Amino acid sequence: MSDERATRDLLVDLLVQFHGRGWVSGTGGGICGPADDGGLLLAPTGVHKELIKPDEFFTVDPSDGHVVRTPERDDLRPSECNAIFCLTHRSRGAWSVVHSHGLSTVLAADLAVDAGADHIAIRDLEMLKGIPGVTNTDVHLVPVIRNTPRERELVDQLETVFADPRFTPAHAVLVRDHGAYIWGDDVMDAKRHTEVYHFLFEATVARRDRHPEARR
Amino acid sequence: MSDERATRDLLVDLLVQFHGRGWVSGTGGGICGPADDGGLLLAPTGVHKELIKPDEFFTVDPSDGHVVRTPERDDLRPSECNAIFCLTHRSRGAWSVVHSHGLSTVLAADLAVDAGADHIAIRDLEMLKGIPGVTNTDVHLVPVIRNTPRERELVDQLETVFADPRFTPAHAVLVRDHGAYIWGDDVMDAKRHTEVYHFLFEATVARRDRHPEARR
Amino acid sequence: MSDERATRDLLVDLLVQFHGRGWVSGTGGGICGPADDGGLLLAPTGVHKELIKPDEFFTVDPSDGHVVRTPERDDLRPSECNAIFCLTHRSRGAWSVVHSHGLSTVLAADLAVDAGADHIAIRDLEMLKGIPGVTNTDVHLVPVIRNTPRERELVDQLETVFADPRFTPAHAVLVRDHGAYIWGDDVMDAKRHTEVYHFLFEATVARRDRHPEARR
Amino acid sequence: MSDERATRDLLVDLLVQFHGRGWVSGTGGGICGPADDGGLLLAPTGVHKELIKPDEFFTVDPSDGHVVRTPERDDLRPSECNAIFCLTHRSRGAWSVVHSHGLSTVLAADLAVDAGADHIAIRDLEMLKGIPGVTNTDVHLVPVIRNTPRERELVDQLETVFADPRFTPAHAVLVRDHGAYIWGDDVMDAKRHTEVYHFLFEATVARRDRHPEARR
Repeated sequence: MSDERATRDLLVDLLVQFHGRGWVSGTGGGICGPADDGGLLLAPTGVHKELIKPDEFFTVDPSDGHVVRTPERDDLRPSECNAIFCLTHRSRGAWSVVHSHGLSTVLAADLAVDAGADHIAIRDLEMLKGIPGVTNTDVHLVPVIRNTPRERELVDQLETVFADPRFTPAHAVLVRDHGAYIWGDDVMDAKRHTEVYHFLFEATVARRDRHPEARR
Repeated sequence: MSDERATRDLLVDLLVQFHGRGWVSGTGGGICGPADDGGLLLAPTGVHKELIKPDEFFTVDPSDGHVVRTPERDDLRPSECNAIFCLTHRSRGAWSVVHSHGLSTVLAADLAVDAGADHIAIRDLEMLKGIPGVTNTDVHLVPVIRNTPRERELVDQLETVFADPRFTPAHAVLVRDHGAYIWGDDVMDAKRHTEVYHFLFEATVARRDRHPEARR
Repeated sequence: MSDERATRDLLVDLLVQFHGRGWVSGTGGGICGPADDGGLLLAPTGVHKELIKPDEFFTVDPSDGHVVRTPERDDLRPSECNAIFCLTHRSRGAWSVVHSHGLSTVLAADLAVDAGADHIAIRDLEMLKGIPGVTNTDVHLVPVIRNTPRERELVDQLETVFADPRFTPAHAVLVRDHGAYIWGDDVMDAKRHTEVYHFLFEATVARRDRHPEARR
Repeated sequence: MSDERATRDLLVDLLVQFHGRGWVSGTGGGICGPADDGGLLLAPTGVHKELIKPDEFFTVDPSDGHVVRTPERDDLRPSECNAIFCLTHRSRGAWSVVHSHGLSTVLAADLAVDAGADHIAIRDLEMLKGIPGVTNTDVHLVPVIRNTPRERELVDQLETVFADPRFTPAHAVLVRDHGAYIWGDDVMDAKRHTEVYHFLFEATVARRDRHPEARR
């Protein structure tokens, strides 16, 4: 089995798993992973993510997001995450990005909105060690950007985030009222970070009255 | 496999999935979908919805709800949702309607009761884009009607709702203390809207202290 | 397949399902159902309920709870629920009783403790119609009894409850700090009532600030 | 099938189950069990725990934690829990220890932090009977220790806990901001205690306003 075939199967498995947890739902959310030819495998838009078949991914060139291979089914269009996924690849070297619509991502971003901040600060959690280069004594900042009508319009804000040294350790960006982008070097890293950040978001929301300083 | 056979299998799969999420339980909740002959496939009443077999659906004429085909099992009666499902079909063109008994539907309707309103207002959520014709900058009104002892007595209120231009974009109606009806053009649309609205209800309930204006 | 064989398989399936929902866990919780010979099939005590095999049930005579058939495995003892299940059978005609250790049962019973009441009052929920003889306009009283070190010592309190006309419609009894007994005419009725009451308990707990009168 | 082969399969099954419940996630959490040769089977570190294969466990000598057998896959390292698991074996006779990263363990430990206590006190719960030697009328103390950057540095604190007669009945230790270690005589005992303690933690957190004395 080629690496790409295994990656397609893995992406499909993860979408089923994430749907079961409420991280992708109502056709929202998504994922990408590495193709054999140096491209990114990209899920189609507007479809029930947990029902995607291994041969229904697009391949895009991460240098500019243009589609280099299309699935045989001709009624599919590439995910609106395309530009964001490609930018994350170019800026962070990520070969896999998860787009979550989990409720905890919305509630975590609310903490920043309430504090008038452009980020949330996560601290005092062992699970922080699940993020590369982060220890459980760090105050870990996750940037929070504004939502916009079209996902590709998030790109400008994301470029600013990626240029901001406060956010160098972050492997996730929260989008207000919307969700999160979470990435890793490969698909299994992105999967680990997705589990880790959802735990961090849930814990930070659950402890919001204990740690008002979490918003600074 | 005929379209109807596939639809019956899909309805059965969705009932199992919705039972696992607490959206149908205790024999409550239900679903309908398109039959090949222009009728609506209707689940039986009073049975464990996650255990329904593909050949246990009734077919009803959506113009008036009369039963045109009965399942072989002769101890079944058609769902009490019959009149509501047929009205939703005639008024909204829906070929599939889900009746949810999820806890979040009850708690979301409570927000309207507390505000003395006939609806809840959902805003500031990207997931709104999962509803046709709605964008994430809209304030989306979901009508809330009173519960009545028999589900068919809800029909009068539903006719009023369907005639109200404030509620034209809504693909769901909440019933106080009871649940929700959620619909779509076909079964997969109804499934998507069911996931979307449950997310919207959960988020709006979780944020009720942030957004008191959500009740206006 | 004999009725009893099917019942044993069904009890096993339900225990797996209930374990998945947190209603039986840590070897706690249990279920009984009808044997072919007029006895009650009773799960063993102290075992992981989701791992019970169909041939591991005891059969007890519901007139006094004495064991009439034992499983082949000779290291098993009959459930401590024996006396309670038999009393419920004799007093209410129940051929199946579920013993839940779900968290919502403990939190629902707390409402009665806080109010100094011997019951909780459930109202304003369509799901009440899932209990035989109860409508959604009723105020439905569920008795709450004190916990005791041994489950069989609950029997005296249960006899008082069963003699109390306020509790005639109830198909469940809550035990403070402990759980609930929920019953039905047969196993599928008990399963339906188990789902219905857990919804009613969760909803009543979630609405506790809205309905302080729920405790009267 | 040798006992050890069955144990390896069981450990793998439990890791899948615990991952589904959020008790191990993001490669965090772990488990050990008895090997045939008197050693402890130990999961590798830094891997997705629900994907571990039966032949990927290390065997360590519980007298000092040195590795006596390694898995064939040569890219694995033994879990950081090694020293803690071995100490728990030597001090408590446990042949199986679960390391949970469940959110309820973090929130339960917060109760001790808020009270300036070195433990939480669990009371008024029937489920306490799921812990050997504990009854439902006991006030059961679970020690809470400080988190440290490396898990093996927890060992000193754990030795103090094991020497403290207040904590003799405890089969779990909470680590602030981190998780819990939960043990039993064998794997199924550890599994039962893991379910029991998670229930106890969830219930104690849910009732924190009712029982301020739970922190004393």
